[in-house]
Amino acid sequence: MSGDILQIFSEFLGTLILVLLGDGVVAAVCLKKSKAEASGWIVIALGWGAAVTIAVYIAGFMGPAHINPAVTLAMAISGNISWGLVIPFILAQVAGGIVGAVLVWLTYIDHFAATEDKGAILGTFATGPAIKNHPANVITEVIGTIVLVLGLLSFSQYTFADGMTPVVVGLLIVSIGLSLGGATGYAINPARDLGPRIAHQFLPIKNKGNSDWGYSWVPIVGPMIGAVIGALLFLVMT
Amino acid sequence: MSGDILQIFSEFLGTLILVLLGDGVVAAVCLKKSKAEASGWIVIALGWGAAVTIAVYIAGFMGPAHINPAVTLAMAISGNISWGLVIPFILAQVAGGIVGAVLVWLTYIDHFAATEDKGAILGTFATGPAIKNHPANVITEVIGTIVLVLGLLSFSQYTFADGMTPVVVGLLIVSIGLSLGGATGYAINPARDLGPRIAHQFLPIKNKGNSDWGYSWVPIVGPMIGAVIGALLFLVMT
Amino acid sequence: MSGDILQIFSEFLGTLILVLLGDGVVAAVCLKKSKAEASGWIVIALGWGAAVTIAVYIAGFMGPAHINPAVTLAMAISGNISWGLVIPFILAQVAGGIVGAVLVWLTYIDHFAATEDKGAILGTFATGPAIKNHPANVITEVIGTIVLVLGLLSFSQYTFADGMTPVVVGLLIVSIGLSLGGATGYAINPARDLGPRIAHQFLPIKNKGNSDWGYSWVPIVGPMIGAVIGALLFLVMT
Amino acid sequence: MSGDILQIFSEFLGTLILVLLGDGVVAAVCLKKSKAEASGWIVIALGWGAAVTIAVYIAGFMGPAHINPAVTLAMAISGNISWGLVIPFILAQVAGGIVGAVLVWLTYIDHFAATEDKGAILGTFATGPAIKNHPANVITEVIGTIVLVLGLLSFSQYTFADGMTPVVVGLLIVSIGLSLGGATGYAINPARDLGPRIAHQFLPIKNKGNSDWGYSWVPIVGPMIGAVIGALLFLVMT
Repeated sequence: MSGDILQIFSEFLGTLILVLLGDGVVAAVCLKKSKAEASGWIVIALGWGAAVTIAVYIAGFMGPAHINPAVTLAMAISGNISWGLVIPFILAQVAGGIVGAVLVWLTYIDHFAATEDKGAILGTFATGPAIKNHPANVITEVIGTIVLVLGLLSFSQYTFADGMTPVVVGLLIVSIGLSLGGATGYAINPARDLGPRIAHQFLPIKNKGNSDWGYSWVPIVGPMIGAVIGALLFLVMT
Repeated sequence: MSGDILQIFSEFLGTLILVLLGDGVVAAVCLKKSKAEASGWIVIALGWGAAVTIAVYIAGFMGPAHINPAVTLAMAISGNISWGLVIPFILAQVAGGIVGAVLVWLTYIDHFAATEDKGAILGTFATGPAIKNHPANVITEVIGTIVLVLGLLSFSQYTFADGMTPVVVGLLIVSIGLSLGGATGYAINPARDLGPRIAHQFLPIKNKGNSDWGYSWVPIVGPMIGAVIGALLFLVMT
Repeated sequence: MSGDILQIFSEFLGTLILVLLGDGVVAAVCLKKSKAEASGWIVIALGWGAAVTIAVYIAGFMGPAHINPAVTLAMAISGNISWGLVIPFILAQVAGGIVGAVLVWLTYIDHFAATEDKGAILGTFATGPAIKNHPANVITEVIGTIVLVLGLLSFSQYTFADGMTPVVVGLLIVSIGLSLGGATGYAINPARDLGPRIAHQFLPIKNKGNSDWGYSWVPIVGPMIGAVIGALLFLVMT
Repeated sequence: MSGDILQIFSEFLGTLILVLLGDGVVAAVCLKKSKAEASGWIVIALGWGAAVTIAVYIAGFMGPAHINPAVTLAMAISGNISWGLVIPFILAQVAGGIVGAVLVWLTYIDHFAATEDKGAILGTFATGPAIKNHPANVITEVIGTIVLVLGLLSFSQYTFADGMTPVVVGLLIVSIGLSLGGATGYAINPARDLGPRIAHQFLPIKNKGNSDWGYSWVPIVGPMIGAVIGALLFLVMT
């Protein structure tokens, strides 16, 4: 594959792996009869952090491994990638998110059937707020994404020991999840939320409810605003 | 020892350590009166990840440290080892699995005696599905092993900081365990399942039940299919 | 920005991030309706460790990233920074702590409103003792800070793999938190306690109680004494 | 300090830190009113692993940082240190263990007073078996220490990224703790058990019971046998 196509493919594959492992850990904790049922926030937060680390390794030898439209936007603002790649990357990320969510469903297919809680089922696909309040939820997502972007751009100022960067990126996700995730479930990534929400809409899951499209703009708009603020802050700082 | 013999020995020893530490953490969590009794999925998943890291260190200065027939198969398909080593490696891995399981039994011998739940006892040896459904269970194992193989082959594209590779491999196992392990207990390794199941068959444990040979083909066939798909996907990608 | 100003700014920003992520994890665990509610000490201790790692990365390409007056004092005593920077660094750290705490409040604003336990609310800002006994509490903080300072000064004797130092520093915080934090909540950092306590005093939180200024000197005096003892011990050792 | 004296001092200081942080985490989990009370095995196992990592950093720039008589014995057998250092190292390690335990008592002094369970109090000093059976308990300690020694000697075959060795050693301890610790509490280190047991004997703790000297030989003899077997196995292998 030529350079740009390979990079776009890597965003697709990386986000697929991200959502397979990330939504996978939510399924493991929230679905009935799972061996990991009710194993708590530490499993969720370490699971998402590890998911990012592995996804960045698998995507990262072919491309920049943003696997997140907010990161793609921040990297374009800060001059790290060309603006022409922004739309193709985002489309590939959302597509990867859809396929990743389908694979989570296949992995836990009998557990989806055994679960009656509509909120638990939707929660294995998309994020939702613990207390619904759109402006407050947007602020939470903005703050989380600012930390994500400031962290990633700070990392760009270091040379890391060979091959260790994805581990450090995963630690950043663990930190955001543990600390800033309790209110909205830390989307901080529009593709991680929108892709699986689309999958939830069309997959034939017995007890599923609606896909809560009324909330779906929050984990898109919040992270994108956070990305802009984070990138601009960083440009002022450096 | 000559080169090939040393490598075969290293597969035996590595899988022995893998199963001693990996089945050991299941024993610690599931057996009665253990100080770690009922300490949950986070202990299981971190315990198996650390087990792989340590086993790869102990095997890895003598050989490639596959410690998993599915990985051996994927490495042969992708051209990383000669096909002539596949059968000897797999035999050594299964033998290591048997001995490792015997050592777990010795480590927790009074706790095996104190445990009456036959399922808990078998679970410290071999994997079993949370919801028995052979086709679905195979799919779960296939998906988990694809992620394992794609991850490992992706790692082969990086140069890692000296001596850090086993830590990254352990993180991959932690991720698969946390995220994809809730349905079948993530064998993703035929030797890790078959070896201890053989040990369960012959060890004199008071309250043990049968060794569930009816399920035993799933954690063999699923990982082997996953290894083939993962390796072929990677060959297409690169 | 010129060198000194940039370093002072980095102390402000680093402590802001430290408190946002560190007090953030306490809010996640202790406030009502948080998705991480009651997820326990492992979340607190790993969350604070990761908070320090990320804060040191974000501050560390601009300055020494002490983000802690006790560390600044120990580094001045051991000759690692000039005494003239001590007061400006401490002021910047306390200011960062105030702003970080305000951001935690914004992140979890509806959860603060939903929480009625005054102690839980104050605990997301400042530390407090499990058993109030000022002399004993000071001793606990002194011992924790001695370990912190001895650890950090020991690290200065090593060359670390590129970019890995903040990860090791985070591990030190995880260790102190897990092991020495159960009695007083391990301030071991006056700015981490005083800054958020000031924020607690003036923020308009419905169910908040008083800011317990009677205890506030303990997490200042204890860490400062620990810093002096730790630095002197290290000077004797080397 | 001259070379040998400095190394002996480093064994004292390293074991002191090891026990302060290691017994500290047991105190944090097991004593009444601790903020970490009842936080479980994951806290214990990660706490001991981190304790070893930090202790090895603090001792390791002055000496080999065995901080364990079993490791010292294995290193003498495998030719890594001179036999003349074995007795001085062990004495320094036991002395460090005593002082470290006294510091744990100071750190949690009011929590020791608030705890009435004699077993919990002794457990914050020394190990004890979940099911008392001396031969079985010795076997468990032997197996755990063989893994420790095989792991450490395997590490000696690698060059690690600068400054990362103590992190890998800590992972080994985490693995042994999670997997092999449930039956006897994984002493795998005579100084870690004997030193604090001596401190328990003489410290004025209100509700303490006897120091269970009848069991005290198990965590000495088991690890020493394991060290000999582990070192000989390794010599055969290499």
